[in-house]
Formats: sequence, structure tokens, C-alpha cells
Amino acid sequence: MSKKERITMAHGAGGAVMSKLIKTFILPYFGGFETEVGLEVLDDAAVVDGIVFKSDSHAVKPIFFPGGDIGRLAVAGTVNDIAVLGAEPLALACGFVLEEGLLFDDLRRVLEGIKGASDEAGVFVVTGDTKVVEKGSLGGLVVNMSGFGKRSRALDHNLAIVRKYRSESSSRWVLDRNLRKGDKIILSGTIGDHGLAVLSAQEGLSFGSNIVSDVRPLNHMIKKVLEVGGVVSMKDPTRGGLANALNEWSDKAKVGISVEENEIPIREDIRVACEMLGIDPLEVGNEGKIILGVIEETAEEVLEVLRATKEGKSAKIIGKATDEFNLVAIKTVVGGRRILTTPVGDPVPRIC
Amino acid sequence: MSKKERITMAHGAGGAVMSKLIKTFILPYFGGFETEVGLEVLDDAAVVDGIVFKSDSHAVKPIFFPGGDIGRLAVAGTVNDIAVLGAEPLALACGFVLEEGLLFDDLRRVLEGIKGASDEAGVFVVTGDTKVVEKGSLGGLVVNMSGFGKRSRALDHNLAIVRKYRSESSSRWVLDRNLRKGDKIILSGTIGDHGLAVLSAQEGLSFGSNIVSDVRPLNHMIKKVLEVGGVVSMKDPTRGGLANALNEWSDKAKVGISVEENEIPIREDIRVACEMLGIDPLEVGNEGKIILGVIEETAEEVLEVLRATKEGKSAKIIGKATDEFNLVAIKTVVGGRRILTTPVGDPVPRIC
Repeated sequence: MSKKERITMAHGAGGAVMSKLIKTFILPYFGGFETEVGLEVLDDAAVVDGIVFKSDSHAVKPIFFPGGDIGRLAVAGTVNDIAVLGAEPLALACGFVLEEGLLFDDLRRVLEGIKGASDEAGVFVVTGDTKVVEKGSLGGLVVNMSGFGKRSRALDHNLAIVRKYRSESSSRWVLDRNLRKGDKIILSGTIGDHGLAVLSAQEGLSFGSNIVSDVRPLNHMIKKVLEVGGVVSMKDPTRGGLANALNEWSDKAKVGISVEENEIPIREDIRVACEMLGIDPLEVGNEGKIILGVIEETAEEVLEVLRATKEGKSAKIIGKATDEFNLVAIKTVVGGRRILTTPVGDPVPRIC
Repeated sequence: MSKKERITMAHGAGGAVMSKLIKTFILPYFGGFETEVGLEVLDDAAVVDGIVFKSDSHAVKPIFFPGGDIGRLAVAGTVNDIAVLGAEPLALACGFVLEEGLLFDDLRRVLEGIKGASDEAGVFVVTGDTKVVEKGSLGGLVVNMSGFGKRSRALDHNLAIVRKYRSESSSRWVLDRNLRKGDKIILSGTIGDHGLAVLSAQEGLSFGSNIVSDVRPLNHMIKKVLEVGGVVSMKDPTRGGLANALNEWSDKAKVGISVEENEIPIREDIRVACEMLGIDPLEVGNEGKIILGVIEETAEEVLEVLRATKEGKSAKIIGKATDEFNLVAIKTVVGGRRILTTPVGDPVPRIC
């Protein structure tokens, strides 16, 4: 790496460039100590001493978009990252970096977004910190939201069901690497909504329909699913979209993944907007959806419970894990098969 | 508050303006639930379900200064905020907001700062997140560091000693509000070093001496002090300096504080530089010092143990808590008495 090399926007876009920055440049300075689930696993959150721990900075622009705002996004993002490990989120800490000149009225709207999402999740901000920086290009403010959670009964039940059918499983958490050949892949709802909503706000586009972000905390929905049991992996397909999330799973679990294109739920207006813009909806980030890897034996029941929730009513089984390691393949509507690779960046700039 | 009112730099400076923003504007949107030590207490960190939790964003400019860098600062700040509640810090999460155009070489130096301070503290980054924003006025990057900790044996021992002499004490943590009339106030070392080092880097000043930041993790020193016992309150006098920290104590514990000016350790070059610049060193932020409120019975022993450590070798008893509620008074060298009020802002812009 040259002395003069600099950070570019692609380093934050959730794709291959960012993954390389983190794995080869940042991680070597961290770690070197024992954790149950640590940095080397690069899962959605870490586990230390029984505590699930997560931090996420949000720099979405604009800070308000159809269906949400940076505050709501920050709460949902952290709550969901803790919940997808199977833990129960317990508390949040909020770090504001405010730009000089930010309207108090805009700060108020962001605070209302935080409060609303906290109330929905039942997880609240207990501590925080505020810094002010000179007027620049943040678009108003950056919000860091960190949080922690603990094991729940639902998680213990879920893993007991997994072990009933899969003797080799010994993981105490729901992790990316737990996916095995034959597991069903469930998507909890339509994809692309959040990214397209942010894009429409960024570009002042109107797609002639009502495209709004799906950003929401999913901890209650996830708890119901764990109470059924048999969930081995969960992930929220944010930056880099479904394409990135499935490739991460394939990579970490050393399995292949095969997905049926016509089973992937996408709203018609999202599909049309993506076609107009030349964007692959599979690469667009989401903030209110998860993918689940579920053992075959309970997959149908998990799907049924998901579909009975408000957040998961459009859930579908979209594919399964295979033994074709490192191959994420998608069976197209017309009967072909294409390889779904890790996107290089995100087609929509900074959706979170 | 007018519809058009906007955030100014003073809202982040750690003084009265910032305190009002947080108490009257931000806090009403949070809370509303049970915590052991929560937002309403506005202590250095929160306690939920036995977990001490803290988040802090760092936006110091420049990101490198004599004696430290933004990475070292972020680790020390969070480790110290957890440690001053009496808890043992266990893990950190790091959220980077990188500016487009940041040199990889500069990012590397920040990572080295994080690694160095983590190694010193024995507390490591276990999870993180990276965002990239358009080139603006952050000066390279913002670092959010959150962390959590748990009760330690040293804390239990410390509180047992407090209870031996003070029957009404029932707090399970070392909190600002625990200070009582008669408690000794100990300062762990010289003040002003960090703020002046940052100021010299900001302004390109040279004070004809070697003024370097004192930024360092203090968890090991704090543990030794708790092993003596009798510590009721601890605080790190960062933004707003000693003046702000003492006034916060007075306010929360509903006591007065009386301090002897000639007992406050200040390096001669810092004192001279402050005089030249017309700055009150009591209002300048520190990152490697703490103040302690200690019961009279063990104060001398605590001082002795502090002075035997590298971090606390210049520690002094600087005063005591009184019954003059809301009055922080300083006895001057010439025998006068002046009131030390909460500074409006920080005389040095953004020292963390």
C-alpha cells in the first residue's frame, strides 16, 4: 500500500472494498485476546463474558427520508444486530456528533425518531455523549448507537431444538458460521425498500408510487421465531444488500447457497424503480428485514410464525444451503442460473 | 426556543450551555424506565442489569497532538469513564467515521494509538463499524468508543470500607452523588496538560517547553485505590476541567466543596502558558487525571497508594466537601476566597 493512498467512499459502502479495509488493515491492530464471539468472526455483534455488544455509527444523508430518520435508523440497526445473534437487547448508548448550525427543530425530530423506535423495541437509551463539530459535510449530524444484550430463554430453547436434530452443533449463539447444507434460507419480507427510499430522498426522485423505508426494530419478531426453534443463523442484509449477506454466510459457513429468484419478495414499484435506475435490488440495503438459516425440520413452522407477525408478513423460503462451497447461485425466473457475487460497493450511497 | 435556533460550538464544550442542551432538550426524549444508574443521574456511565455501559464520540482536532492521538484518547476516555464508577472495564467497541481523503498512513497511526492504549489498559476492541463520509471539516475522522464493565471484588471491598464508617451509605457504585460533608477531595495529578497540548497543536503554538497530553487509561491505578477502600466518588475532569467537575459534584451531592489553590498540582510551564493566554487552568480539560472523594478515615492511605503509582505520583489532597450546598470555593494563595463557577464553555476548543 502506497504512502499516499487515501480513504474513498467505496471504503464505507459495505462491499468487497470495505471488507478488505477491515480485514487487512484495521483488524490486525485489534484482537489478540479471548472472546466467545470476537472480531475475527466479524459477525453482527461480539460476545464477551456473556454480554452481546454492538456499536454502529450512522451517517445517512439526508437525515430524514420517507419512512424514517437517522435516529430511528440508529436504534433499529443496533437492536437488530444484537437480536440476530439470538440475544435480548437490553440498553442503548447514544453518541451524537452535531454540526454547528444544525436546527434545534431537526435535532428534535431525530430525538423523536430515537424515542419512537425505542418504544417499539422496548429498549432505551441509558447513556450518551454529545460533541459539536464545525459546519461541514455531515448533513447535520452523525449518530453512534451502541448497545448490549444478554442470553434469553428463547435462545436456549431455540438451540435445544437445533441440537435435537443436529448433534455436531455446539454454538451457544446464532452465528453466520452455523449454516449447514440443507438448511432453509428464509427472507422475512420484501427487499430494497430502505435503500430506494433513501435514494429517492438523496436525488429528489419520485418513482410515482409510495416507496418508504422499512426501517424498524425486529427484536419482538425474532423472539417469536426463537420460541419456535431451529434457527441456526440470522443476519440483517443492510449495506451491500442480500447479495452481500448471502456471500458472507457462504464464506463463513463454508457452504454454498442456492436461491430461487422468483421466491424473493420485491415490491413491484421497487422492481420497476431499480430497473429504471439500472440497480440490482439484491445489492440494495435493507433495515427492516432479516434472513434466517433454519433447520429443515422446523423451517415451515418458523415461516408460519413469521408470517403471522406484522414485520414478517411477506416472509418466504427463498432457497437453501448447499455443498457447493463459496458459490451463491440464483435460479432465474427463466430457468437459468447466475452467480451472485459480493458487490464491490453499495449502488445507493450511504444508506445508514 | 425559536424555530430557527441552531446548534453552536458552545453546545459541545462541556460547560453550562452544553449542560442545558442535554438536560432540557435531549433527556426528555430518553428514559422512562428503570435503571440502577441511568440518564437522570448524568454520571460518567450508566448501569443496567449489573452492566456498566458508556459511549463517547471523539472529534478532537488535530487528530494528532503532543503526547497522543484521537485513538489513544478514545480508549482512555471510555476505559476511565467506566472505571470511575468503580467497575472493571471488560471490552470496547469502536465506530469509525472516516473522511474521504484520509491518508491510510494517518488511519494506521490512529489504530496504533488504539492498540497501544488497549494494551496498557488490558481492555480491547471486540467489535466495530466503519462509515465513510464526504470530505468536510472533521479533520480526518471521528472515533466513537463504547465499552462495558462489571462489578469487581475491589469495588465490593471499597464499599465495605465506606459502610464501616458511614451507615447511611447504600449505593452499590462509586457515584458523584455519594459525596458527603467532610470527605477529602484528592486530585490524582497535575491539571491542564491535555488541554494545553491540544491547544498548542491547534494553534501551532510553542510554549518553549515540553507540554504533552497526559491522556492514558487509569483503570489499573483506580483498582489499587479501591483495594484500599473508602472511595465514595470519582470523576475524570475532562471538558470544562476541574471547575466543571467540582461543580457537578456539588450539584449532584448537594454539598459544598472547598479547595486550597496552592494544593492544586499544576506544572509551572502550564501555569505560565495559561497566564500568557488568559486561560484559567481550572477550566482546561484533562484526560489522564481523576478527582476522588474519599472518607476522612482512609484518605491519607488512599493518597499514599496513589502516589506510589506511575499515573498518580503527583496526587494531592486539594480540599474537602462542606455543608455550604452549591458553593465551590477556592482559597487563594494570598488568603482570599473566590467562587469557582461552572464554565460556560471550554476555553480550549474540543479537546476530545
